Amino acid sequence: MDITIIYGKNAVIEALECGEREFNKILISNNSRADVKIEQIKKLAQKLGVVYQFVAKEKLNALEPEGRHQGVIAQTSPIKYTDLEDFIEKYKGEQASVVILDGVEDSHNVGAIIRSCVCAGIKGIIIPSRRGVLINSTVEKTSAGAANHISIIKTNSLVSAIQKLKDNDYWVIASDHHAEHNHYEIDYTDMNFALIMGAEHAGISKSLLKLADFKVKIPMLTNFNSLNVSNATAIILFEYVSQLCKKNKRKDKNG
Amino acid sequence: MDITIIYGKNAVIEALECGEREFNKILISNNSRADVKIEQIKKLAQKLGVVYQFVAKEKLNALEPEGRHQGVIAQTSPIKYTDLEDFIEKYKGEQASVVILDGVEDSHNVGAIIRSCVCAGIKGIIIPSRRGVLINSTVEKTSAGAANHISIIKTNSLVSAIQKLKDNDYWVIASDHHAEHNHYEIDYTDMNFALIMGAEHAGISKSLLKLADFKVKIPMLTNFNSLNVSNATAIILFEYVSQLCKKNKRKDKNG
Repeated sequence: MDITIIYGKNAVIEALECGEREFNKILISNNSRADVKIEQIKKLAQKLGVVYQFVAKEKLNALEPEGRHQGVIAQTSPIKYTDLEDFIEKYKGEQASVVILDGVEDSHNVGAIIRSCVCAGIKGIIIPSRRGVLINSTVEKTSAGAANHISIIKTNSLVSAIQKLKDNDYWVIASDHHAEHNHYEIDYTDMNFALIMGAEHAGISKSLLKLADFKVKIPMLTNFNSLNVSNATAIILFEYVSQLCKKNKRKDKNG
Repeated sequence: MDITIIYGKNAVIEALECGEREFNKILISNNSRADVKIEQIKKLAQKLGVVYQFVAKEKLNALEPEGRHQGVIAQTSPIKYTDLEDFIEKYKGEQASVVILDGVEDSHNVGAIIRSCVCAGIKGIIIPSRRGVLINSTVEKTSAGAANHISIIKTNSLVSAIQKLKDNDYWVIASDHHAEHNHYEIDYTDMNFALIMGAEHAGISKSLLKLADFKVKIPMLTNFNSLNVSNATAIILFEYVSQLCKKNKRKDKNG
């Protein structure tokens, strides 16, 4: 099988728990024996018949030179990408909103976005095959393992992907700081939406902006350049979550 | 003078523009001559009488080995920290909310939080001197230079700092996932608030939680562990910004 490494305690726990990854081996630092989450990793590994071994910390540092491994590295199969057609088929008739990343380049940002998406109940992330980052070890670490809990869709053409979503009754929302509407002026709760977020510097490409049904901006209180893309994504997604929570509360009240 | 390095185009531009940093020298990669923002840096440097020179990219890579310098590194004086007393004095009678970071450890998170704070009109960040990260080159880079546009207050005791804020009519809000209230159930617009955000793993210390006037949680749509701390901060701050924008719009309408 293809082998990748994932590192960090949450990333390894979530990969073990999701039941969709094949494991070659888990390496644990000798210094990390007493840790609660390492205990959890050992138990999960035993249950699933995955080999783990204790090694010197230096061996982990050699595999992950930035030193962010938190004492554990797993050799596993890579994240499986999903086809957009399969995704649409799987969630037919259900709430299944998605986030589209138009060339986001920083692995930390992509990881944090995936984490927010999972917390906000978003079902898929769409990324272009040839621009921006794909799912790598840093993305998995920064997502705290959330990358195992969402469909990740890789596509050669974001334009065709968006067209296909529109054909399947998705509403396309673009985050654009020139937009007329504030992000909180849209009701996100009655639709499947596809939220497009642009690259750190370039923003959203014109060809995609043209396809948007709504454009929204996040209002700012100073004229400082702009928000980090993962923070901007979180702000819009949790506006949606807040709207949904308020709506459900009203429904409960009205019986 | 003490010397630090800052890197990245926005970080260098904002440091030049803020007028509070002393510059030793700016190094620009030979390969970056044609860039719009590099042009801006050259013009600002000329105006301010700051020396810049073109060097081989390898020289920049040696100074910033992660390769995130975007072709420019400046040798400057470090960010100046502000005393809490001076901060309170400076903003007497004005809106001057703050964010308190209780031991946040990741430089990327601290940088992104500072950037969101500046966009949301927050006037100060309070960090402990002995836990979590101080302002380093990575923080400045990730903040896109926003660290020059906000007071950064370093304190030996967050407990005393919070007590002092309370004595000066600040309301203390703690983000805590055990909280009863959702973050959007509080009106942030009629007070100076001090929002406490906890460390990535440990959350907020008990001694600080006890001092909070309000505890708020961000509701989630799945039971995935939790949000990244910089995303959580952005969500709460931009709930405040949204409330303020809505309120101002109502005021405008009513005359």
